[in-house]
Amino acid sequence: MMGGSAVMTLIEEQAGRSASVVELMNPACVAVVGASEDRRKFGGRILHLLNNQGFRGRILPVNPVRAEILGHQAYRCIMDLPQAPDLVILAIPRDLVVQAVSDCGDIGAKGVIVVASGFSESGDEGARLEQQLLAVAREKAVRIIGPNCVGVVSPANGFSLATTVSLVDRAPVKGHIGLISQSGAVMGTMIDRGISQNVGFSHCISVGNQADLDFCDFVDFMIDDPGTHVICTYVEGIRRADLFLRAAARAQAANKPWLLMKSGRTEAGAASAFSHTASLASNQAILDGVCRQFGIVQVDDVEGMLVAASGWNKYPDMRVRSVAVLSPSGGGCTIAADRLSDIDVPLARFSDSATAALAPLFDGPVRNPVDIGAANDGAAMGYVETIHRAALQDEQVDLVLSVVTNAPVLTEVGKMIGDAARAVAQPLLAVVMPGGYAEGAREHLAAAGVLCTDSLDAAMRAIDAWHAWAQRPAASSAVRPQGLPVPQPGGAGRLDEAGVKRLLGRYGIRVNEGRVASTPDEAAAAAQALRAPYVVKVISDDISHKTEVGGVKLGLPDGPAVRAAVVEMAAQVRRKRPDARVDGFLVQEFVRGELELLLGLKQDAQFGVTLAVGAGGTLAEVLRDVLFAPCPISRESAGRLLERLKLAPLFGGVRGGPPLDVAAVADAMVRLSWLGHDLRDSLQELDINPLLVLADGAGCVAVDGRALSG
Amino acid sequence: MMGGSAVMTLIEEQAGRSASVVELMNPACVAVVGASEDRRKFGGRILHLLNNQGFRGRILPVNPVRAEILGHQAYRCIMDLPQAPDLVILAIPRDLVVQAVSDCGDIGAKGVIVVASGFSESGDEGARLEQQLLAVAREKAVRIIGPNCVGVVSPANGFSLATTVSLVDRAPVKGHIGLISQSGAVMGTMIDRGISQNVGFSHCISVGNQADLDFCDFVDFMIDDPGTHVICTYVEGIRRADLFLRAAARAQAANKPWLLMKSGRTEAGAASAFSHTASLASNQAILDGVCRQFGIVQVDDVEGMLVAASGWNKYPDMRVRSVAVLSPSGGGCTIAADRLSDIDVPLARFSDSATAALAPLFDGPVRNPVDIGAANDGAAMGYVETIHRAALQDEQVDLVLSVVTNAPVLTEVGKMIGDAARAVAQPLLAVVMPGGYAEGAREHLAAAGVLCTDSLDAAMRAIDAWHAWAQRPAASSAVRPQGLPVPQPGGAGRLDEAGVKRLLGRYGIRVNEGRVASTPDEAAAAAQALRAPYVVKVISDDISHKTEVGGVKLGLPDGPAVRAAVVEMAAQVRRKRPDARVDGFLVQEFVRGELELLLGLKQDAQFGVTLAVGAGGTLAEVLRDVLFAPCPISRESAGRLLERLKLAPLFGGVRGGPPLDVAAVADAMVRLSWLGHDLRDSLQELDINPLLVLADGAGCVAVDGRALSG
Repeated sequence: MMGGSAVMTLIEEQAGRSASVVELMNPACVAVVGASEDRRKFGGRILHLLNNQGFRGRILPVNPVRAEILGHQAYRCIMDLPQAPDLVILAIPRDLVVQAVSDCGDIGAKGVIVVASGFSESGDEGARLEQQLLAVAREKAVRIIGPNCVGVVSPANGFSLATTVSLVDRAPVKGHIGLISQSGAVMGTMIDRGISQNVGFSHCISVGNQADLDFCDFVDFMIDDPGTHVICTYVEGIRRADLFLRAAARAQAANKPWLLMKSGRTEAGAASAFSHTASLASNQAILDGVCRQFGIVQVDDVEGMLVAASGWNKYPDMRVRSVAVLSPSGGGCTIAADRLSDIDVPLARFSDSATAALAPLFDGPVRNPVDIGAANDGAAMGYVETIHRAALQDEQVDLVLSVVTNAPVLTEVGKMIGDAARAVAQPLLAVVMPGGYAEGAREHLAAAGVLCTDSLDAAMRAIDAWHAWAQRPAASSAVRPQGLPVPQPGGAGRLDEAGVKRLLGRYGIRVNEGRVASTPDEAAAAAQALRAPYVVKVISDDISHKTEVGGVKLGLPDGPAVRAAVVEMAAQVRRKRPDARVDGFLVQEFVRGELELLLGLKQDAQFGVTLAVGAGGTLAEVLRDVLFAPCPISRESAGRLLERLKLAPLFGGVRGGPPLDVAAVADAMVRLSWLGHDLRDSLQELDINPLLVLADGAGCVAVDGRALSG
Repeated sequence: MMGGSAVMTLIEEQAGRSASVVELMNPACVAVVGASEDRRKFGGRILHLLNNQGFRGRILPVNPVRAEILGHQAYRCIMDLPQAPDLVILAIPRDLVVQAVSDCGDIGAKGVIVVASGFSESGDEGARLEQQLLAVAREKAVRIIGPNCVGVVSPANGFSLATTVSLVDRAPVKGHIGLISQSGAVMGTMIDRGISQNVGFSHCISVGNQADLDFCDFVDFMIDDPGTHVICTYVEGIRRADLFLRAAARAQAANKPWLLMKSGRTEAGAASAFSHTASLASNQAILDGVCRQFGIVQVDDVEGMLVAASGWNKYPDMRVRSVAVLSPSGGGCTIAADRLSDIDVPLARFSDSATAALAPLFDGPVRNPVDIGAANDGAAMGYVETIHRAALQDEQVDLVLSVVTNAPVLTEVGKMIGDAARAVAQPLLAVVMPGGYAEGAREHLAAAGVLCTDSLDAAMRAIDAWHAWAQRPAASSAVRPQGLPVPQPGGAGRLDEAGVKRLLGRYGIRVNEGRVASTPDEAAAAAQALRAPYVVKVISDDISHKTEVGGVKLGLPDGPAVRAAVVEMAAQVRRKRPDARVDGFLVQEFVRGELELLLGLKQDAQFGVTLAVGAGGTLAEVLRDVLFAPCPISRESAGRLLERLKLAPLFGGVRGGPPLDVAAVADAMVRLSWLGHDLRDSLQELDINPLLVLADGAGCVAVDGRALSG
């Protein structure tokens, strides 16, 4: 991988190649190497797909023995081609690939799609071959898609260079969803579901092993592509965190929704991903932090991703903060309201005008959800269109969720919903729950172009994604606080509490001051230089649980008490742990906090130094309430992280106590994130545990810490 | 409601009516009051449904003006009927219902289905009418289904008396799923989905307002019905907890799976349920506890419930503890493995024989999930049947999950999966992810009777339900510990710490002993009677946060220290809260626990006295880690509750400390549950917070408590 990254960076620096994806995706001339007429073969399938989609550019099949294939003049070999193709697809055995790429370079081709498998996903030998492939591509200035991929399907640009089996007899739907998938099967599955649901794509790219072009290169391309409203990515690993972070920032700046399905999330999943591709599973918690920071919306289901994307496909500007639920049955209303509550999406409050429009139709009060079956016309369903129109027109309703259950005249119900959707072009999602009885309704909804799914689960995933997007953070810049030290290269090895506290102190994070003493008298003297009250701890590398051997004394009011505590402590430790070497006694200011937090830094193999914040002390083990963010972070990001902690309710006061100084914690987080940024080349881990949070206005104090450099 | 319950109990006692549901569900003669030929009317629809399903009994339409309807001789009124029908359905306006039920009683009808709405779900007037209806039914010894329901669909017994719109032209599928639904629309939706998926039902009952027959009466019926393999219930409230608990215990004893979808779970949902039916939303946490105790499996989606039920429909004895995942693509494998991991369902480890059968087909090691596309025949998919057979035959695999993604020759893939399923009758679930491209595969799977869904979400819900069922607790009896006091009726009002501790002490729950003192000297004397060290607390109804006014002193080593603490405390409290009346000082044994738990009792309006166990202290507020169980509980149930707490990992030791005395906590829970049981008529609430848990062998101690009786 390091080789690949280094090469990539070199290419980027030399030629500003980021534009080349645009060139590859707009080919005037393409070549199919290994072309045939046989649909069972890759080379046949590719040509059938290309013909089906009416590609208007020049098509150059390469076949050693045929003069013409499916209406196109064929050529014996790559070197015989009459012009340089913009994009070539190689449907040839693995062992011929490197030479073919070399030939492509020699005739001036810009990009090559490598379908063959047996490269880095298959073991050491394949990995070596992939390195050769990359070296040749670099030498000849050819970009590679794949290997081990199914290719490119671009309804927007009217071409496919792909082996996707489901498209041999069915053209993909053209639309505004961009799709990038590490798995060709997942890509084919989504395109095929799209055909069934009449949901269209702009460009679909199967990126395979990403030897050269990374999926993020295509994300970049789609961010800039005005025909793509939403970017869907299915990957089993993030290989180039630098590209990912750059694309994330660009997508955020461009306000373009990006849905990420990162599979191989879990231990079991990662084991499978490893055997399938050469991806290393990234740490999910850190990925969560990155996505949270940049507003990338994670999804974990293919169908849910497609329904979510369908929303932006049809309504590029939608912003779902609240939902109106309409159903012909109370059961449909109740089920949907439950599920929206599960995902914390609020029900809309109808505006006065919508209420006025709906009130005459009902005996009782008008409420959201609306049980259409409870309207005054009984079960006749005569008001379906009126009610849908009123909800769609309501400016306080961001989305109408129409839950179609069993109901009388269901076909007519579908027609009325469709008519309302035609009349008012506001976001509407219909969930059709019955089976065959609803076929007529489904046809009307499809004819009216209503966003539709049979799965309440998929609907909820989509609404969750839309709502998350509406709540996404604005881009915020991390501003370096004034007065931070000039970065210095750190040394290697462990840092103890004192060392960490010196570091934190330089970055303006408050620590409880302390002095090391060797004797009771020294300890009493040390206390004079510190603020009362005091805590005394034994210093010994041999003792990990100091409390258990009497090695910690808290809340000592004055110097004499400190002296007495050291005398007693020395005796107790000697009695309980005669083997332990005692290096002295630490006298510190004793701080009583309202709450213990954990702050930390962790060097992630992919994303670099990340900040951690979470519950500290005993809570840390139980709550697993830790969130991550790449360093440095803005003040806004720090605040949002704190709000999202499970223990956030305690910030208002612990057990009836005063509100806590959350602002001071956010400030400490920002400072620590800059410390991480500055020491990004040397620091491995740093823990502050606990960071004691005091009452509002009183700040927070790091009372213990450790770090690892190197 | 109380009226209804009292009536019901009376009927049960008088006539042992629980058998009557069997009679109602096996009618030899039925009457349709308000019959017509018009499918748009209830009375027409009912008769069409009845005719469609080839009911072999006698059909008696009642219509004031028609002599014959749809081939059946009609009668002018109920009193004119030539024989007593077993079951009558009333498709007549609300205001005629009470008289009609009276007439039905007079001619000796056993049961009446009331379709009309406008009863208790619609307000006070309707509620009064429902009471009248019930009174007449009781007087005439007629059982009522409804009102406000769509009726009964019984494929097993070959009849429908229902207004279900979707069945007018389509017969339901006969099978082994019993369905009871408070919502007629949800029932119709499920039956219709069942037709589309070829999944069949034994009996379906829409229970509506449950004025007389409760949904639990039908659960009881289905528990005893050998043709019903699994019971599905959709309800928006539990109205008769006594019937629910009895049915739960019977289902558990009969080992019959019961799926419960309780809607109106959440605040938003409950608001909707309230407006829709007269149900009161039950406390979800308490319902969770009841379901956990009896092995009732909760689901929250209609489609997921149907797929789960389909499993038991086809494989009544299945026991899903581990799953093998097979897919033509690595993407399918990875996605499914992730999702199984999310729901904590383990991947099966292939047996040696399965491994031996699979090994020749692959280059690399054989692992679960199996990427069929990685087999030696490349993408030819030639091994699909062999691989499915091997996995199905493996006795270490409880379920084969076949994830069908885009793949070459997909129709043939479907055929091969179907062939394997025909050859080996072990549990198999196929998820078909593509759209139209998979139609051929779907047809083959359907022809082979393979359990099938298009939704990975629904598949996961089903597997989760099957796994939960396989893990269900055996029925365990709560055994009264020896030496508990004879129950005494409690008084009304609050119990303070001392009162609660006396109560706990009588039930054998350890408390830290204490004495009340009025003066420093009395306090020092009190200490002599207790074990050192000590804690002193001020006693004052006016002070709720004692710590903040210096009203608590911990860890006092001896009598003199206790005396000094009381002197200082009296001064501090006087200074900080001069208004507070001080009633004395509590001197207690000071216990330092490893962990704080909360134990409690709560009188639930539905389920009676329930035991609560969870995180205590500050953790309680943040973790919301509290589980409930109805009192009394068995020792096994206590142990299982403790294992399920979020903080269970801490039982092994807090921050490197010793393992905790979980057995003592379980014992205290059992004793407290008997206390709750004994005082079930008077106790409203009781809290022990905290219960301090000590190291293994050292027990647990209730150090604070309060209670409310009345």
